[in-house]
Amino acid sequence: MENVINAIKQLKLGNDLIKGSWGIEKENLRVDEKGNLALTKHPLKLGDKLTHPYITTDFSESQVEVITPPSKSIDEAYNLLENLHDIVVENLPENEYLWPSSMPAIIPDDSLIPIADYGSGEEALKKMKYREYIAEKYGKHKQLICGIHYNFSFDNDFIHTLHSYCASNDSCYNFKNSIYLTISRNLLKYQWLLTYLLGANVATHSSYRHCCELERHKKEEEFIFKGACSYRNSLCGYRNKKDFRVSFDTLEENLKDLKQLISSGYLSGVNEYYSPVRLKNSKDNNSIVALERDGIEYIELRMIDLNPLTKTGINKDDLTLVHLIILSSLLYPCSSYKEDEQVEAILKQNEVSFNGHNLSNELRDEGIIFFTRLQNVLQDLDVINDDYNRIIKSAMAKLKGEEKLYSQIIYEKVKSHGYINHHLEVTKKWKIETLNNSFSFKGYQDLELSTQILLKEALQKGLKIEVLDRYENFISLKKGDHKEFIKQATKTSLDSYATALIMENKAITKKVLLEGNISVPKGDIYTDIKNALIDYNKYKDRKIVIKPNNTNFGIGITILNPNFSVDNFKQGLDLAFKNDRTVLIEHFHTGNEYRFTVINGEVAGVLQRVPANIKGDGISTIEELVKIKNSDPLRNKGYRTPLEFLRLDEEELFILKNLNLTPKSILKKDEIVYLRENSNISTGGDSIDFTDDVDESYKIEAINGAKAVGANITGVDMIIENIKAPRTKDNATIIELNFNPAIHIHCYPYRGKNRRLGRKVLTALGF
Amino acid sequence: MENVINAIKQLKLGNDLIKGSWGIEKENLRVDEKGNLALTKHPLKLGDKLTHPYITTDFSESQVEVITPPSKSIDEAYNLLENLHDIVVENLPENEYLWPSSMPAIIPDDSLIPIADYGSGEEALKKMKYREYIAEKYGKHKQLICGIHYNFSFDNDFIHTLHSYCASNDSCYNFKNSIYLTISRNLLKYQWLLTYLLGANVATHSSYRHCCELERHKKEEEFIFKGACSYRNSLCGYRNKKDFRVSFDTLEENLKDLKQLISSGYLSGVNEYYSPVRLKNSKDNNSIVALERDGIEYIELRMIDLNPLTKTGINKDDLTLVHLIILSSLLYPCSSYKEDEQVEAILKQNEVSFNGHNLSNELRDEGIIFFTRLQNVLQDLDVINDDYNRIIKSAMAKLKGEEKLYSQIIYEKVKSHGYINHHLEVTKKWKIETLNNSFSFKGYQDLELSTQILLKEALQKGLKIEVLDRYENFISLKKGDHKEFIKQATKTSLDSYATALIMENKAITKKVLLEGNISVPKGDIYTDIKNALIDYNKYKDRKIVIKPNNTNFGIGITILNPNFSVDNFKQGLDLAFKNDRTVLIEHFHTGNEYRFTVINGEVAGVLQRVPANIKGDGISTIEELVKIKNSDPLRNKGYRTPLEFLRLDEEELFILKNLNLTPKSILKKDEIVYLRENSNISTGGDSIDFTDDVDESYKIEAINGAKAVGANITGVDMIIENIKAPRTKDNATIIELNFNPAIHIHCYPYRGKNRRLGRKVLTALGF
Repeated sequence: MENVINAIKQLKLGNDLIKGSWGIEKENLRVDEKGNLALTKHPLKLGDKLTHPYITTDFSESQVEVITPPSKSIDEAYNLLENLHDIVVENLPENEYLWPSSMPAIIPDDSLIPIADYGSGEEALKKMKYREYIAEKYGKHKQLICGIHYNFSFDNDFIHTLHSYCASNDSCYNFKNSIYLTISRNLLKYQWLLTYLLGANVATHSSYRHCCELERHKKEEEFIFKGACSYRNSLCGYRNKKDFRVSFDTLEENLKDLKQLISSGYLSGVNEYYSPVRLKNSKDNNSIVALERDGIEYIELRMIDLNPLTKTGINKDDLTLVHLIILSSLLYPCSSYKEDEQVEAILKQNEVSFNGHNLSNELRDEGIIFFTRLQNVLQDLDVINDDYNRIIKSAMAKLKGEEKLYSQIIYEKVKSHGYINHHLEVTKKWKIETLNNSFSFKGYQDLELSTQILLKEALQKGLKIEVLDRYENFISLKKGDHKEFIKQATKTSLDSYATALIMENKAITKKVLLEGNISVPKGDIYTDIKNALIDYNKYKDRKIVIKPNNTNFGIGITILNPNFSVDNFKQGLDLAFKNDRTVLIEHFHTGNEYRFTVINGEVAGVLQRVPANIKGDGISTIEELVKIKNSDPLRNKGYRTPLEFLRLDEEELFILKNLNLTPKSILKKDEIVYLRENSNISTGGDSIDFTDDVDESYKIEAINGAKAVGANITGVDMIIENIKAPRTKDNATIIELNFNPAIHIHCYPYRGKNRRLGRKVLTALGF
Repeated sequence: MENVINAIKQLKLGNDLIKGSWGIEKENLRVDEKGNLALTKHPLKLGDKLTHPYITTDFSESQVEVITPPSKSIDEAYNLLENLHDIVVENLPENEYLWPSSMPAIIPDDSLIPIADYGSGEEALKKMKYREYIAEKYGKHKQLICGIHYNFSFDNDFIHTLHSYCASNDSCYNFKNSIYLTISRNLLKYQWLLTYLLGANVATHSSYRHCCELERHKKEEEFIFKGACSYRNSLCGYRNKKDFRVSFDTLEENLKDLKQLISSGYLSGVNEYYSPVRLKNSKDNNSIVALERDGIEYIELRMIDLNPLTKTGINKDDLTLVHLIILSSLLYPCSSYKEDEQVEAILKQNEVSFNGHNLSNELRDEGIIFFTRLQNVLQDLDVINDDYNRIIKSAMAKLKGEEKLYSQIIYEKVKSHGYINHHLEVTKKWKIETLNNSFSFKGYQDLELSTQILLKEALQKGLKIEVLDRYENFISLKKGDHKEFIKQATKTSLDSYATALIMENKAITKKVLLEGNISVPKGDIYTDIKNALIDYNKYKDRKIVIKPNNTNFGIGITILNPNFSVDNFKQGLDLAFKNDRTVLIEHFHTGNEYRFTVINGEVAGVLQRVPANIKGDGISTIEELVKIKNSDPLRNKGYRTPLEFLRLDEEELFILKNLNLTPKSILKKDEIVYLRENSNISTGGDSIDFTDDVDESYKIEAINGAKAVGANITGVDMIIENIKAPRTKDNATIIELNFNPAIHIHCYPYRGKNRRLGRKVLTALGF
């Protein structure tokens, strides 16, 4: 391995060195509002924990585990972790929370701690049987300790290139194994450093029975350990009955030792070997067979604590810090990891876990050398960046005592607020933050909201998601062999290209609807102004709309009131023909406009849009009312939230002036003032859900409209005189079919339920 | 009816008056290159004559009949007529032609004239039985007389509006009947005028046995009638055994008279009543039942001769002339049409048919008054236009003897060239014209060629075609209840919107192809220039292509030869990133590029494009060679023909100069000079069909490529080293999948067969 740095330099592989694949697993206990372990079932809405690839339970029914799919970057892995975390929190019962510390909250007697119930079936029973076995062996309370597992592999091409250069005589199988073994030995040797920097639990509740003999300080029912970095990583934490010596020199020896432990009855299988680092092969997660045959594919770091200072249990910088420590383990490996070195490593680890706040000079220097060396080599390989620099500096500052450790901050909080109280406060705050932003898909907020909603629903359903082109909101979703490509949430394989084209052409849509006996506004289609002018007499007694065929957003549209002049008629036509070669003249229908979003032959949501408005309370000024309404987390500016801020700009002030009002005017209780004439959401309009309020006959008409053009997903705009009165031939008319309708408007309306259109699209797609 | 003009004026219905629906039927005999009646079968390629709605046979197997679908304008009806005519001519055996005169060519003995063979089945046998009956009754030779039937109805809204104003006390059924009866009476009264203006046969061949006693002049084996306008409309033409008197006063009386004739055994049914005008109902073409129940829906004029001076048998102006005469019949109807008036009308008709060139002053004046009156009223109603004016003036000039009649021109031609000879010459000329322009769909030449080809194939297949938006090349095709919407020939319901989106994004296409194990150029995708520059070392030893993700037509693409500099690399990347946010770098593959157009899992055509070039003959200059090559009817400019003109502009001259050539240089025999570097068809490139020449393995790869993205219609661009050698993993690579591929390139290549992709698209669509 000595020539690795040289090889990377020679081959200019710096950029490939830092590539990799990341996967994060995280457990949390569910607790009630008082901090008691929740004894409820795993939430149904989170799917089947036996088969869900991302959301399941660990030992206990009350111990939620989220698993991110393999990601090509730390950012992506972190984003997926946060989204999975949010999905879990959003689907908890109102009075439940995720306990943010690795050490448990208030837990009942062992007999009352529920083992995860996976249902029936061979696989389920096997999982439950194993849990009963470890419950018996280690005690249930110990299994409630939670943490973060960090899975990492290098880019395969990087390994292959490196292999060709460094060890072309040896097999790639051996080379790859030796890479991951080298790193593992180093990580084991430096586990104290990870515990020092990332350790984040200094206390436990007395209900965590049989705490080991090292308790230092007792405060009422809580045990707080002064000077400790990580109770979980201490001798009292989650460990095997004894420190088994397992070789990390070669894969062969490693597996031989493990087999020996299993055959001697110490362990039931490899997954009972609670080593801080595990060697892994993705083909069979918990068995030796695949490892032996195909070699090590990735490593799993298991000693990272939940960090209650962050919402998700770990922050992005710490994911990078771990990555940097892995890189250092490759670039500056220790030469060996013999038995005495193993003993030393464990002693250091125990020392730091219990008393890391009083770090010895020796360890401090060792740590500082570690990071200084890393910084230099990254510089040398030209891969150093601002983030790496900052993170390394922060680690060194912590070693030098210039920056507080997580465990120090937590110690202070727990000391003053109490262990249970502090962590409850923290998790309640995080829950509100999650719920207020539940419309967004973290890390993808640059995508359209509709696409974010779809991705989040897909993740919740356990689909494999991939953002193929984020500028285009183009994604793919996969489950088993079933893959779908989707752009802008509703451009899917469900609609044929021809159907979309029909909807994009108003004149053709109208023609097809008419042939399908759907009520559309009366009128005609013109391709030259001469023929349109000839028909002046046909229209002059009515209110009409003149509109270009293909343009959108109201451009080029004129509405004329009855008895309009030839001149006005001509002006309207001129404007429309300026925007398109084909122009429609239509009778204007009175009533309210509703959007019916139809998905696979069903109305998924009905919505009305209302112009920006405020409602008086008898006390507040208009200015204040706007501010209050804008405090809704659904509102912001720039289309990243479901609704936009109300404004008091030129146009709004003009309207107020016409009403003899100013921003300082106080409105009477329940007095409504409209600040805009247009009802667009983009200018602060409200969206109001009417899905359960419209007469069934209109839904049938919307469905028939969609059917007429062969559309599986469409937004049907209908003018309705009175939604409570059943439809007749004349009291409702479809004015437009919209291909690629936005789904977020039905999910986060100003008033009304979340109609979960993302989920409906997924169901329509066969997921 | 007196108040019709007034009503139209009051209601400003002028524009609606001239609306209507037109349908043209036309028969032609098939003859061989000597003018003998073809005794071959109706061409198989024209479909099943029993069920084809547009192309069938009349009495004889050798008598092709084309029937245009109802059209909303004369232009449309004429275009469809011309296209149907062209389709028939294109599918005739090489030595067969359509006989352009109403009177037959050289016909064999009655016993040898083949009655149309419709096959077996009830309907077929009924048709054949009726033909045997009339053959027996009138003689087969008489049934060979051909002509044009002109079907017309007014716009229904116009009739309804007129009814409300003029006769709201009476039923609309009665009002509509009275409108069409009025017109019929007038047309019968003025049939002489139509015969005078449109009559176009003055001769017959002696094989038309049993010519009646009125023969005037015999020249060898041909009978030429001096002074005659229309032998067909004369007493010797296509008439009933006697002139039955049938009332046109009311529908009731008309049908009573017809029923009387049938029950007395004079006629076998209404369709044996050879009146110049028939009252029709579309629900049952040849029976009284629907007429009695639903009234008259349209009228059929049956006295129009084939005009051999035109390719299609009638020109657009004459279709308009007949329409104007119908309008005049509505606006200035004669008050009655009693028995003596009927006798007078037939006498006039006979006189004009045989001796129209010597028109009496009385008839001349009557005709001039007819048109003067018409012109005035159209002016008054504000619907006169240049075409109407010109056509009316021409008719009056013919009445005044200032302009030659068709029959006069034909008389002169026949006199000097002979009846058979002249008409053969004419039809051979028309056939060449048809074949030279077979790529275009007449009247729709503003559409893309691919759409024209599809429309023409659809018409040939008997589909109902509709151009929904000609600017957008958006059409619909229908057969029975099956309707398809198609844009630009290959944007259809066969491909999902998602599939099209995949193909529109090069990076995603490549990703999906790779997942499907399809050979694509090696390389990577970049969303920022920094990451791309880092990979310089990966590429620098190879020939590479740098291209933006979404742009087309080669914009922003750079090709770099091995050992390119970082600077050149950066320039290429800058250019690509200027055109897109996503950029692909690919290894350049050597070989020729072929387009495989895949339709429904089959390769419909394989094509190579070659830069504009000329081949020497040892005599001609380059200038002359270009001129010769450009004389190909497939070449023109402006993308209305399958190929474009070669040019000798700046770029071509520059290339010649580099070869030490000028436009005046003479090339050696078989010396090839390329005038351009690019192979685009748009700059005079050649398209060369390779469908039968490539190894099957490439076709399978193309099909698999299409399958990988789920495409039913796609243009696969493949680079192949050697089309004769089977495919390996490395000797071919798919560089692009094109949604919406042009089909015309495979139908009219510079070299190779017409692969009939239009037909393949129709089959794929289920037609």
